[in-house]
Amino acid sequence: MENILKIDPEKVETFLVDFIINAFTSSNFNIAIIGISGGVDSAVVASLCKKSLGKKNTYGIILPYKNTTKTNLDHAYHVCKTLDIKYLKFDITPQIDSYFKNFPQANNIRRGNKISRERMSILYDLSAHFSGLVVGTSNKSEIYLGYGTLYGDLACAINPLGDLYKTQVYQLAEYLDIPKEIRDKKPSADLWPGQTDEEELGFTYEEADKVLYYYIDEKMEPSEIIKNKKINEGIVKKVIERIKNSEFKRRLPLIPKLPSKF
Amino acid sequence: MENILKIDPEKVETFLVDFIINAFTSSNFNIAIIGISGGVDSAVVASLCKKSLGKKNTYGIILPYKNTTKTNLDHAYHVCKTLDIKYLKFDITPQIDSYFKNFPQANNIRRGNKISRERMSILYDLSAHFSGLVVGTSNKSEIYLGYGTLYGDLACAINPLGDLYKTQVYQLAEYLDIPKEIRDKKPSADLWPGQTDEEELGFTYEEADKVLYYYIDEKMEPSEIIKNKKINEGIVKKVIERIKNSEFKRRLPLIPKLPSKF
Repeated sequence: MENILKIDPEKVETFLVDFIINAFTSSNFNIAIIGISGGVDSAVVASLCKKSLGKKNTYGIILPYKNTTKTNLDHAYHVCKTLDIKYLKFDITPQIDSYFKNFPQANNIRRGNKISRERMSILYDLSAHFSGLVVGTSNKSEIYLGYGTLYGDLACAINPLGDLYKTQVYQLAEYLDIPKEIRDKKPSADLWPGQTDEEELGFTYEEADKVLYYYIDEKMEPSEIIKNKKINEGIVKKVIERIKNSEFKRRLPLIPKLPSKF
Repeated sequence: MENILKIDPEKVETFLVDFIINAFTSSNFNIAIIGISGGVDSAVVASLCKKSLGKKNTYGIILPYKNTTKTNLDHAYHVCKTLDIKYLKFDITPQIDSYFKNFPQANNIRRGNKISRERMSILYDLSAHFSGLVVGTSNKSEIYLGYGTLYGDLACAINPLGDLYKTQVYQLAEYLDIPKEIRDKKPSADLWPGQTDEEELGFTYEEADKVLYYYIDEKMEPSEIIKNKKINEGIVKKVIERIKNSEFKRRLPLIPKLPSKF
């Protein structure tokens, strides 16, 4: 772990618990709806929400598709049971497969995005049903790398991990006692069998997070990062290309401003 | 029609066609994916996209649910055929009904929002399939009244009608020769049988648009609008309450900013 990405997990926890409490208080809600994947990010968010709102107000929602791995499903249950929060499970296979009957040749990316959006729509439906807020689980690395589905997993009311890089989420996860088997497995969106984030991205989060930190937080030029920070040029370029190509995922729809004289 | 909301449809058309061409050119896309409901807004958007990108690059997507009225479905086809654009139809009933088997008691609002989000996820899937951009159809009245589904019909890449009130969309629709039967029927989201926008809102668009114009564009205080513009107090209050309560639909998810010393 590079020192630049080191966090004080105790301070971060206090800050994020405050953030969650304020966000819920100011919007008059007290129930958090969280999609639990079995991965580290949603486990951390569930733990933070439990600390902020209490275990009775924290709902873990488990939404497997037929190709969700047994390990991840087991981990999702394990998170909810360890935290002793409420949880619900719905299999999304019927909805996804009904649609893709129209497109039997659809590739993994299309299927993965549809799955992610189906999950979002269920989380939002449950937030209406239980009068809660959907709490997102995207971290800063995913947001800037565009490694998430627009109007899918990126959609939420509040996103507590949005200013923490993936390698920082791990530090917080350890501090919060997230089960070791969840922290130790390779990060994966689990949208198709064998998918791992780092293989799909072509670099590790440890590599990406350094580039992201220098580029976003320190506002360094790519050439400086390559030269002064001795980071592989190929990785720097890939990361920065991803930031630029995913800009549309971080903004609202484009609306024209009509001149008032019209 | 109040004079304050009168537009010059020819100038507006030219401006919006320019806007669409620029948005597509700058993002290197040339195919527009538009959900066609049979209503006036999507008909206007399809017509503008055809003028901007050509009929071969304009895809009307018709996504009926089992309770979509025959009139609206017929109008949706009529729009696509009159404009001579490409169109595709997918019935979303299997996906929606699979999910609500879990909640047979779910109310119309929940069902309507799920339908809207299912449509969004299909439009986005098709935008990936055909390498296009999802062009939204929400007008300024709907956006400010919060009369739309977050991450559903409000989700899109670009939203050409976002700065036109509903009563202004009608003026543009007439100029663009949108079929009279579409312009003449009562506006409806058609999410359940018999739904009409104005009945659900509790005021007409003509009433709402005046309040919205004075409040948003002229930045007048509610009390001034009631006093100086002689608009019914109840309507002014209802409109402004809707604007305030729907703020969360017009912004990005809330992300905390962690202090750098953490």
